[in-house]
Amino acid sequence: MTDHPRFNRARNPKRALYDEATVNAILDSGLVGHVGFIAEERPMVMPMAYARGPGCIWLHGASKARIVKLADEAALTMTVTLVDGIVAARSGFNHSVNYRSAVVHGKGRAVTEPEEFEAALKAITEHLLPGRYAEIRPMTAQERKATGVIALTIEAASAKVRSGPPVDDASDYTLGLWGGVLPVVTALGRGIPDGHTPQGASEPLSLARARARFSN
Amino acid sequence: MTDHPRFNRARNPKRALYDEATVNAILDSGLVGHVGFIAEERPMVMPMAYARGPGCIWLHGASKARIVKLADEAALTMTVTLVDGIVAARSGFNHSVNYRSAVVHGKGRAVTEPEEFEAALKAITEHLLPGRYAEIRPMTAQERKATGVIALTIEAASAKVRSGPPVDDASDYTLGLWGGVLPVVTALGRGIPDGHTPQGASEPLSLARARARFSN
Repeated sequence: MTDHPRFNRARNPKRALYDEATVNAILDSGLVGHVGFIAEERPMVMPMAYARGPGCIWLHGASKARIVKLADEAALTMTVTLVDGIVAARSGFNHSVNYRSAVVHGKGRAVTEPEEFEAALKAITEHLLPGRYAEIRPMTAQERKATGVIALTIEAASAKVRSGPPVDDASDYTLGLWGGVLPVVTALGRGIPDGHTPQGASEPLSLARARARFSN
Repeated sequence: MTDHPRFNRARNPKRALYDEATVNAILDSGLVGHVGFIAEERPMVMPMAYARGPGCIWLHGASKARIVKLADEAALTMTVTLVDGIVAARSGFNHSVNYRSAVVHGKGRAVTEPEEFEAALKAITEHLLPGRYAEIRPMTAQERKATGVIALTIEAASAKVRSGPPVDDASDYTLGLWGGVLPVVTALGRGIPDGHTPQGASEPLSLARARARFSN
């Protein structure tokens, strides 16, 4: 991404504050998070489904997954990045990417208390498909056993955002070159029913809600 | 993401092999990578621009960025994830995400040799905008100093892919519910010129090449 100090909020102390509204808006607009942890002294980064919980991020994994087996209190982080455009400048140096990124740091905690476990699973499913739980059958006890949920307790969070046109050196503007932004769009299409869906069944409402949430 | 063993290649030993062609195709289709490293005993995950080099991944950062200052031989990892769809099943348990993900593990190395440094910067810019270097002015010595490039020497890499419709429990198919996939599409639009671009200047060819590379 851009590392130009003008746009890197993390390197501008005034903008590196925990801006909860910005962080939450990015988390709500992301499809998957990239979760970082340490295993055998190596950094690991896994794409995971997630949802915002109270003071935490809920993460979903199989009960046998390595991350679910991490010790309680293990250091965890999650980064969610939305790419909005490729910034084409007049020099290689000023090329950049328009993006919104949220980083959450904290500790892991296994979610075992039944009420939180149910809330977390519902929230993780409905992060992607808002309202989906009312459209499907309930979870079985066997499925609960095969599912692991961990909470990333939020200790710190921050956002970085770069937007707008390239910022070129003043002398480069006179070169007569094309400079601007190539927009990157993420959009959800129409749902594609599988072969077991009754003929003529209409698309569930949760899919339209997802389209509204994720289209930029 | 799905952690259901039927779809998680990493947990199926037959499919967890280093499949170089699959890994490279995913790396070539990703806009940004999520780079993991350890700083002060904490996991860190940063979105970064990247490019494939010989036996390595080149990563771009400001010369003052924390990751550029990591010790040579520091453990690094990068994950690139392409989200293709939201899989709406008939139970919460069988919900999933269609995605292609590549994970690269290795060690960091500062790129200082001039020839590799130039090649890396060009490759990183042209990963996003193929052919862009021929359209812009050359880099200055001052810009070189302000730019850090690191190589992630590849020690291991793997891919995970989930595609296709939901796989529901047999009894759930008779519930009369809608099941299927909500496609997630990433597409690049038309370039938006900034106010310093000459009137009527046509969009550079590198933007069309980027659209061809990244649209799924």
